[in-house]
Amino acid sequence: VVNWFRRERKRVVAPRLRVRASGNKVSNKVDLADLTPDLTTFLGKAAYVQLMIFENLGRVVSTAPSVDAKTMLSEVAGFALAKHRGLVAEIESRGTDAATVMKPFVGEVDSFQRMTQGNDWYEAVATCYLSAGFLNDFLVRLAGGVTASAAPRILEILESESGDALLERELLGLVQGNPRLAARLALWGRRLVGDTMLIARWMLRPTENHDSDEARIEPVFTELIAAHTRRMDALGLTA
Amino acid sequence: VVNWFRRERKRVVAPRLRVRASGNKVSNKVDLADLTPDLTTFLGKAAYVQLMIFENLGRVVSTAPSVDAKTMLSEVAGFALAKHRGLVAEIESRGTDAATVMKPFVGEVDSFQRMTQGNDWYEAVATCYLSAGFLNDFLVRLAGGVTASAAPRILEILESESGDALLERELLGLVQGNPRLAARLALWGRRLVGDTMLIARWMLRPTENHDSDEARIEPVFTELIAAHTRRMDALGLTA
Repeated sequence: VVNWFRRERKRVVAPRLRVRASGNKVSNKVDLADLTPDLTTFLGKAAYVQLMIFENLGRVVSTAPSVDAKTMLSEVAGFALAKHRGLVAEIESRGTDAATVMKPFVGEVDSFQRMTQGNDWYEAVATCYLSAGFLNDFLVRLAGGVTASAAPRILEILESESGDALLERELLGLVQGNPRLAARLALWGRRLVGDTMLIARWMLRPTENHDSDEARIEPVFTELIAAHTRRMDALGLTA
Repeated sequence: VVNWFRRERKRVVAPRLRVRASGNKVSNKVDLADLTPDLTTFLGKAAYVQLMIFENLGRVVSTAPSVDAKTMLSEVAGFALAKHRGLVAEIESRGTDAATVMKPFVGEVDSFQRMTQGNDWYEAVATCYLSAGFLNDFLVRLAGGVTASAAPRILEILESESGDALLERELLGLVQGNPRLAARLALWGRRLVGDTMLIARWMLRPTENHDSDEARIEPVFTELIAAHTRRMDALGLTA
């Protein structure tokens, strides 16, 4: 597995930013429009990634050490499931079978899920917050390249509530006064961002022009990493 | 653990049936009104049982051998989660904390969950169909005894879609042409019904008059067992 974002760049390409025209929540954010795959691929990958996020949340619900945590995490799981189901409905409204559309992407996403599942409940919750947070942001950017009439519906699904504030509060409660756990989750968060960027990159449609792709990707990922750093900072963890 | 429903009965008490007055889906069904616990206890137990059902579904989503099964099971998980969340909202609308209300019931329900989790994915799916089906039916009957103004809302939550038809279709696909699995699930289903009846019974409010309680319980459980037998029959399994 190539840790692409650390590799040496051969030349400097001035990034060409794209500014979203619409007035919605993520306006003024650069997006990845030219690298958005065809609609079916996009929906299949996004739906299966949301299903994975839901599965991770389901696992931390099951293994939560308190009823408070269970209750809060089940609410967050509902948000991820709503995104998955919304995307499945979108796929099915096009007369295609959701499982068939998702199937080609199972291997890659399942492998990512295994790598990022964490060594215990705390790391698994951090994955649900940090990695899912990154992927949710990324999918909104990538959806900027959907040109079909379904685009507003898809964006609405992907921009819907993710429960970030709930996860942040839970994690903050866990790391406060527990510097050992904080140190461990800081390390885990740094590892997560690498793996998460790889799976995000896998969702892009590669074009013929590799340098141009890199120039397109760079500013978006810079922004997504900044958001990741803010999530880590909010927990008092060093990104 | 006492297998209460097989124990010898000391005397025959003519069951006094209660017929639900309302015109909804379960009208003309006997209910357990006199044995419904106080509203807070009822909501706490029902909400935590629905959370357990959701957790079980989450686990079979995660471990499903195919994307088709995953997709279908995640839809069913959404139904259970909607019930749990609906009951949590009901608890919170009364100014009480959902986790606090559920906490006293964690031990009993978690222990039931461990006993009924199944030895593999197939048995776990059977639990999601057979045991959850029984508990869903039971909770609707028990809700017949809620007299608060919230009663219609609570009944609406508990009577909402459970995804039984989806689970039945999935299980039917698994056992057809696989007599070894069918025999194993038949055995599992028979064991499940015993444990499930115990946890259902635990949800009742015991009164001073034990014989009268038994007389009230008997016809309801006879009906719930008949529904269990129909679920087993639909799969070609001997109950």
